[in-house]
Amino acid sequence: MTSAWLLPEHIADVLPSEARRIEELRRKLLDLARSYGFELVIPPMLEHLESLLSGTGHALDLKTFKLVDQLSGRMLGVRADTTPQVARIDAHLLNRQGVARLCYCGPVLHARPDRPLATREPLQFGAEIYGHAGLEADLEIQDLALDGLAAAGVESLVLDMGDARIVRSLLAGEKAAPVADIVAALTLKDRSAVETLSAGLSPATREALLKLLDLYGGAEVLDEARRILPAHPAIAAALDDLAWLGRHLHAAHPGIELGFDLSDMSGYAYYSGVRFSVYATGSTDALLRGGRYDEVGAVFGRNRPAVGFSLDLRQLSAAMPAAPLRAAIRAPWSEDAGLRAAIRALRADNETVVCALPGHDHETQEFACDRELVAVDNQWMLRSLATA
Amino acid sequence: MTSAWLLPEHIADVLPSEARRIEELRRKLLDLARSYGFELVIPPMLEHLESLLSGTGHALDLKTFKLVDQLSGRMLGVRADTTPQVARIDAHLLNRQGVARLCYCGPVLHARPDRPLATREPLQFGAEIYGHAGLEADLEIQDLALDGLAAAGVESLVLDMGDARIVRSLLAGEKAAPVADIVAALTLKDRSAVETLSAGLSPATREALLKLLDLYGGAEVLDEARRILPAHPAIAAALDDLAWLGRHLHAAHPGIELGFDLSDMSGYAYYSGVRFSVYATGSTDALLRGGRYDEVGAVFGRNRPAVGFSLDLRQLSAAMPAAPLRAAIRAPWSEDAGLRAAIRALRADNETVVCALPGHDHETQEFACDRELVAVDNQWMLRSLATA
Repeated sequence: MTSAWLLPEHIADVLPSEARRIEELRRKLLDLARSYGFELVIPPMLEHLESLLSGTGHALDLKTFKLVDQLSGRMLGVRADTTPQVARIDAHLLNRQGVARLCYCGPVLHARPDRPLATREPLQFGAEIYGHAGLEADLEIQDLALDGLAAAGVESLVLDMGDARIVRSLLAGEKAAPVADIVAALTLKDRSAVETLSAGLSPATREALLKLLDLYGGAEVLDEARRILPAHPAIAAALDDLAWLGRHLHAAHPGIELGFDLSDMSGYAYYSGVRFSVYATGSTDALLRGGRYDEVGAVFGRNRPAVGFSLDLRQLSAAMPAAPLRAAIRAPWSEDAGLRAAIRALRADNETVVCALPGHDHETQEFACDRELVAVDNQWMLRSLATA
Repeated sequence: MTSAWLLPEHIADVLPSEARRIEELRRKLLDLARSYGFELVIPPMLEHLESLLSGTGHALDLKTFKLVDQLSGRMLGVRADTTPQVARIDAHLLNRQGVARLCYCGPVLHARPDRPLATREPLQFGAEIYGHAGLEADLEIQDLALDGLAAAGVESLVLDMGDARIVRSLLAGEKAAPVADIVAALTLKDRSAVETLSAGLSPATREALLKLLDLYGGAEVLDEARRILPAHPAIAAALDDLAWLGRHLHAAHPGIELGFDLSDMSGYAYYSGVRFSVYATGSTDALLRGGRYDEVGAVFGRNRPAVGFSLDLRQLSAAMPAAPLRAAIRAPWSEDAGLRAAIRALRADNETVVCALPGHDHETQEFACDRELVAVDNQWMLRSLATA
């Protein structure tokens, strides 16, 4: 059966009460980013395919819807992620020498869903800092991410950190390593797969990879890692960086549970340094992911340091506590100029005034009306409505 | 030359200063619609093609990008217009007996641009009233449209009205009339084409069609039309409706120039009654178009009365007067807990505080900073910055 109103799989309408929550959340996040000095950009939904997919890896290619441009005959893609677009804007359009803080908010489309119940149309909000290689930028991005989730009212959060440099350093000398498969097995904590895939590597590398699988938990994980992982300057730097960020995050966001997971390499193809994910306690789907990806702008001719995060507003709004609807005012319909002026004044004063169109006076209002406009001695006044 | 950063034709990034204007405009329009009792909905960017194009005509088909759904093998379309989606939501999902007021705001994509300089990615805002056949709904939609343009600060507006029933009634008895071609010629005011195309029609119809070409101008046009057009109940009703709306609009929006154009049939395939367009004085591209299209939900199983309008936020923001940027506060970067607390408090108070990351103290700020945070006697205080 193919009804005209049946939507494609993993695609859904957002109806009024959820749409209002998403809109309020959108404003909170954009206002918060602005208070940090992030500037909003709106990249297009469509780009030439090679621009959208430059240097982003196979996974994004599979997720990207492709189209032929009737005007040029060239292949276009509908964006499946906004980060490569913002890197292009930083590299080519803004072309600033110093720090650029950019944020964005808009839909992306996925040809295939990320997870069994995932939407194919996330409403992506994200923020990025370009041009600063130091940890201060990582900290600012994590601060903004946590403030954003706090503004959304999501309580009881877990922030989980790792660093792409650790596995990179371990595998750096192993020419024959099946890197992508090892990374996937580490992320899934699939010990037997890691054992099989690392069979051809040096015993020291193999042992270190297997040890990584147990290196998750609180700050003690970093001490343990310093003790048992091979001495390597990049690994030591990664562990120092994670410890520094952990201290600062704990001071600024004492209510948040901090965790370290040194084998979680989600987004490995992307990240070049610290990466992080934030979960609501008890949930296995991250609400937000981010990290450092210093290579992202290289294809656009500027290899600038970059750090950022993104989240799906639809997913986040579903995790938010319910907010009460602001009450509205009911008004009759009439050509009376006094009534029309009274309605205009109330609306200008931020009130919602719903006119009952002629013949529809007794319909149930979707807006909860707690007051109505009534004429008393030729004056239009507000009167309380008894709540049923 | 195909650089990775060259965008497709008629596709553009929106950079920070314009993006901020668009975001502010978006909020004004959504808040205004909410104050009237319109509920926000977010239909998807993608739908099955037959759902997107049901009953909408050939023009929308040509504008719609088509894709194959990897999950189902079926044809999908990227929406080129949001109105058919909102009609689907009214008809099938909400399924209310009474009046439904719905609004939306999001991108649409066009495979071909509407005009030589048009974008292929309008950011469409629109509002619709379902379930009321009376003129009161037309008036509410026109009020909202004009209040929206006033909120955007666009001054000196012309609202131009017509009614699809006039040409429909004239052609109703003419079985052999090339309706689409005549409508196009009337809209272009191409007298010789109307003469040629109407050669096979009855002399009375032909004469009436040619007279329509001169029926544009102020309220006197309606009197003239009553005098010279054939007596037909639907034509008389259309002229009465236009006059009634004109009187009310003039009373509520005295600064707006009202015009009537009885041969302008833009959107004829769509509209079933009064249609209107709003222009900035001196511009030939409408900022906003709307009208009554009572048939729009029929394909979804509910033929409800419907009236609405839509506009492109990008086009409207370009017509807006420039607004000054709110000044920001510059802060140094330090691990000092007092500084970090001072920054948090200012941001919570709606201020923008931009931290100069280490090594970037002397970069030009994109935000105009009129104050800075400085330590005086171990206290962080705001100090005015002399403007250069």
